[in-house]
Amino acid sequence: MSALILHSHPEPTAFNAQLTQQATQTLTQMGYSADVADLYQEGFDPVERGEHYPDRTDAEVFSPLTEQRHAWQQRSLPTDVQRHVSRLEQAELLILQFPLWWHGPPAILKGWFDRVLISGGLYTSRMRYDNGYFKGRRALISVTTGAPAEALGPGGRGGDIDALLWPLHYSLHYLGYSVLPPFVAAGVQGQGYRYRDEAAFAQHLTGLKQRWSEHLRRLDAHSPLVFPGWQDWDSAGRALPLAR
Amino acid sequence: MSALILHSHPEPTAFNAQLTQQATQTLTQMGYSADVADLYQEGFDPVERGEHYPDRTDAEVFSPLTEQRHAWQQRSLPTDVQRHVSRLEQAELLILQFPLWWHGPPAILKGWFDRVLISGGLYTSRMRYDNGYFKGRRALISVTTGAPAEALGPGGRGGDIDALLWPLHYSLHYLGYSVLPPFVAAGVQGQGYRYRDEAAFAQHLTGLKQRWSEHLRRLDAHSPLVFPGWQDWDSAGRALPLAR
Repeated sequence: MSALILHSHPEPTAFNAQLTQQATQTLTQMGYSADVADLYQEGFDPVERGEHYPDRTDAEVFSPLTEQRHAWQQRSLPTDVQRHVSRLEQAELLILQFPLWWHGPPAILKGWFDRVLISGGLYTSRMRYDNGYFKGRRALISVTTGAPAEALGPGGRGGDIDALLWPLHYSLHYLGYSVLPPFVAAGVQGQGYRYRDEAAFAQHLTGLKQRWSEHLRRLDAHSPLVFPGWQDWDSAGRALPLAR
Repeated sequence: MSALILHSHPEPTAFNAQLTQQATQTLTQMGYSADVADLYQEGFDPVERGEHYPDRTDAEVFSPLTEQRHAWQQRSLPTDVQRHVSRLEQAELLILQFPLWWHGPPAILKGWFDRVLISGGLYTSRMRYDNGYFKGRRALISVTTGAPAEALGPGGRGGDIDALLWPLHYSLHYLGYSVLPPFVAAGVQGQGYRYRDEAAFAQHLTGLKQRWSEHLRRLDAHSPLVFPGWQDWDSAGRALPLAR
C-alpha cells in the first residue's frame, strides 16, 4: 500500500510539517510506503499558462484544457507535471496537508489541481465522479486553521468547515476518489496570534498530533463522505427529483 | 465612483477578457472609472513565502501573518503587494472575473488573497466581517464555467454554484464588503469541448455579455448576500441559538 502526502506550507518547521512527519511515521507503522511531495520545497509553479507547453496544438490561442489533452496524447506534459502525475498514479491513499488560508488551500496547492489533474488524461466527460480515474482509491484532507474549533460549526464565525472544504472535496470526488472525513486541526496560531499560554499551546499541539495519528489508524473505520453520482442526475446534469 | 476588476485568465482573447471589456464599457457608461488589474499580464506571483520579505521580524521561522503585519507596520510590503493594496483601497466596487477551475478560482487569484490581503493591515481580530476594513463597499464575482447552467443547482453534476462560491464569498464578507449576487456565465467551453454548433455557441456568448451588462446596470437593485455577523456569535465564535 502506498500513500502520497501533498504538503503545502512555506515553513519547514511549521506545525503542518510536524503533522506530515506524524502521518509518515504512522502510515509506515501501518504498513504503507509514504511519499511526501513538498510543493514549496520543490518550488512548484502553480500558475497554469501557455509557456508550460512548448509543443502546442494551437500556438495562437491558449486554451488550458485543449493543451492539457494534447500534451497528454503526445506524451509531452511539462516535466514537473508528469512527475506529479506519476506519483499520484502510484498512490492508493492521497493526503492533502495544508493550512487554511482565506477559507481555502494555499495558491500553491490550488495550482497543483489546475496544472497536474490533466483534462483528457486523469478525467474525461465520462470518466468522472463515481466513474473517475481514481475509483477505488481514497483521499483525505488534513487542514490546520487558527480559528478555534467552536467557531467552525454551521453559522460559526470562522465559517462552517464542511462548507469551506466542500469545493475541494468535490474535486476529489470528481476524480473518483472515496473521500474520507477530514482531519481538522483548529486553534493553530502563529506566535503573537495565540490565546493560550505557551505550555497550554504546546499541549494543544501534542494532542492534535495524537488525534491525527488516531484518525489515520482508524482509516478503514471511516465512512466516506456522500456525494451525488451518475445515477442521481438526468442527462443535463440536474439532480433527479427522487435521488437519495 | 471607482471600480477595480481583478482579471485572472491566461488568454487575452478568451471569453473572460470579453466579459472584462464589457464590464469596463458598461461601468464607464454608468459613471464609474474602471481599473483592470490583469494578474496574468503582470506576472503576479501567487505564492506567499519568506523570500517576499527581505526585512523580516523573524529571520529564522517564516510565519506569513507575522511578517505581513510587520511589513505593514514598517511600510515595507513587497512592491507588487503595495501596488495591489493601493488599487484596492481606491475601489468602491470590486469585481473578481475568473474561470471556475477545479471548483474554485485559478491559483493566481487565490494567491492574490494569500499575499495582498494583509494581516494587521486590511483586517485584524476585531476589524472583520460587518466591522471589516472595506465596510460600505461592494464586491461581486463574475465567473465562467464549462458546465451547463442546468448542472449547477443543488445536487447537480457540476456542483451547486452557490456552495462552490461560498468560501470566496465568505472571504469578501470577512473583509467587510457587501457581497452582491454573482454573475455566472455557464456553458462556456473551449473549442473541442462544446455541445452547441458554432453559430449557437456564438449567440450564447453574445447573450451572456448582454446579461452581464444588465447585471451591472442593476447593481443598486441587487440585495447583498446574507452572512452571519458579530451579533450572531458568542465570544467563542459559535452561532447563537436564536440568531436569525
